[in-house]
Amino acid sequence: MVQIPNPPPHSSPAPRPVPTSADVARLAGVSRATVSYVLNNTSAVRISEPTRRRVHEAAKELGYVPHAAARSLRAGHSRMVLMPAPDFPVGPLYSQFISELQWALGRLDYTVVQYGSIGVYGDEAARAWAELRPVAVLVPGAGLGPQGVSVLKRSGARAVVTLGPECVDGAHSLLMDHEAVGHCAGSHLFDRGRRRIGVVVPGEAGLESFSQPRLEGVRRALHGTDATVTELPLAYEEEAASRLAARWRELDLDAVFAYNDEYAMLVMRALQDEGVRIPEDTAVIGADDLMLGRLLRPRLSTVHIELPSGRDLAELVDRAVRNPGAAPETHKVLGASVVHRDSS
Amino acid sequence: MVQIPNPPPHSSPAPRPVPTSADVARLAGVSRATVSYVLNNTSAVRISEPTRRRVHEAAKELGYVPHAAARSLRAGHSRMVLMPAPDFPVGPLYSQFISELQWALGRLDYTVVQYGSIGVYGDEAARAWAELRPVAVLVPGAGLGPQGVSVLKRSGARAVVTLGPECVDGAHSLLMDHEAVGHCAGSHLFDRGRRRIGVVVPGEAGLESFSQPRLEGVRRALHGTDATVTELPLAYEEEAASRLAARWRELDLDAVFAYNDEYAMLVMRALQDEGVRIPEDTAVIGADDLMLGRLLRPRLSTVHIELPSGRDLAELVDRAVRNPGAAPETHKVLGASVVHRDSS
Repeated sequence: MVQIPNPPPHSSPAPRPVPTSADVARLAGVSRATVSYVLNNTSAVRISEPTRRRVHEAAKELGYVPHAAARSLRAGHSRMVLMPAPDFPVGPLYSQFISELQWALGRLDYTVVQYGSIGVYGDEAARAWAELRPVAVLVPGAGLGPQGVSVLKRSGARAVVTLGPECVDGAHSLLMDHEAVGHCAGSHLFDRGRRRIGVVVPGEAGLESFSQPRLEGVRRALHGTDATVTELPLAYEEEAASRLAARWRELDLDAVFAYNDEYAMLVMRALQDEGVRIPEDTAVIGADDLMLGRLLRPRLSTVHIELPSGRDLAELVDRAVRNPGAAPETHKVLGASVVHRDSS
Repeated sequence: MVQIPNPPPHSSPAPRPVPTSADVARLAGVSRATVSYVLNNTSAVRISEPTRRRVHEAAKELGYVPHAAARSLRAGHSRMVLMPAPDFPVGPLYSQFISELQWALGRLDYTVVQYGSIGVYGDEAARAWAELRPVAVLVPGAGLGPQGVSVLKRSGARAVVTLGPECVDGAHSLLMDHEAVGHCAGSHLFDRGRRRIGVVVPGEAGLESFSQPRLEGVRRALHGTDATVTELPLAYEEEAASRLAARWRELDLDAVFAYNDEYAMLVMRALQDEGVRIPEDTAVIGADDLMLGRLLRPRLSTVHIELPSGRDLAELVDRAVRNPGAAPETHKVLGASVVHRDSS
């Protein structure tokens, strides 16, 4: 961790003081309580229109902005839903999901904040998130334990929702079963008569929590059959794919589950350049059902993954926030089904 | 906006009170000041190891988490760098950029928070961001005006950095010249002898601030020549691309700048399916220089876009935070250069 020295005093003039509600009250000639009532739009207290106007004008003139945290302390909770930001570049499926979720929560008057805690994981990360006093926390992936959930709840989070492979004590759990994705792919290839099946395992850090269960799912699908599973570690680079393709005859595989559609495109191109016929010599299947798979020739078979809809998830969060005492809900949310096209 | 009624009292048991530093002090048998010294790791004050341990144990037992906002009020500022989250699904280039930036700022001990204010733009959004009291705000895209900058600064932000087409008064500006991307593409196609040039304009909301200057750049590159520019609105859907391809002979174009590589893949496939030869009948060029362009056949020509490095940007933010009185810096950061492959 790089330590930042304080700036030398001469280079950093003292910033202008941040205006407070007391400043607004002084300028408007009213009490701080009145400022608070007006700016928080409290309907419980009758305040005359001219007074309201005076407060708003004073706030505007001073550039006063209420302090979210102070306000949330008064209100008992904020409207902030915190999500850890993924620490790897996300694919189109996840990006679409976040976009939808943001909209759906926005419509329910929540604000989504993606928190980028780099190099901090699990319960330690929970402590950092808790410092922002979110009303709800939505955690994709594994890593958060019951202790982290408890830290979040003790610091005022009314709901903790995990999207991961397992339930976490105290949290609502949306179970994402990535084994099912691999199981689908493995069964499909087996049903197509393939017996020597390669499974691509991406080299990028951060993808293990998806790739390992997918690999496991293929193994499970083929358990007790005469089929073999070969793990194929692969970086998302043309050169790496070419090296893999050059070893293809020697590997003697008749099918490959390529982790996702983007890896499938990479592998398929390298195999085609090497003269491997798809699907005759080797069947290829991806996952995610991206548009690009339909644009490839042969058209790419894939596993369609049904993420929870942003709207359903937003409603779960809202329900949980409004009823923090309710028992945690558990939903299985990841649908996986094969889309059979021409590559397998 | 959906209004959320308060939950009925019986469904929402009062949450346990959030532990405060006073609770920690009481349990550890020390003063609140000592708790603060220990938990903020203040080295100015000598505190014995057993006392430190007692405070840490008490904090742990109670599940006490310092309040970020309270701490930042004491410290004068937080370590939070706020970025508005894009309100459309992002492409791989942007996703990679955010990832890098997060890492680089993390190494300088900042935390990046992506704030998803849906349906709120410009200076109104700035007010919402200000409520979180970030130490710096990094705003991609247009929309923030001098008033927004001033709101942010008055509320304690020591640095505001915009990444957009124009300078904004009071903010550091990284100028992203998307016209240059279009200009590159247009000049390249002209130099390759093409004169009837189509420009894809994506139908997805949120992309106008990129697509319009790119179109403008093509026009500027071809201004005063005998070449024509035809705008091609296009949704990112196979059917839309097929419809466009079906009209291709009638449109009588000999080249297309497809906005980016993903649109280029879509258009190229539709044209190839229609029997249009690439590049003989129609030259195609994309932008972003994604891996997928190298995997297409013919290999896709593209405009390589040099985004600012996460590290440089992190250093600018840090410099600005450490010296909030310095004059705003302006840098032109978007490098655009043609990567000529086989499709043009």
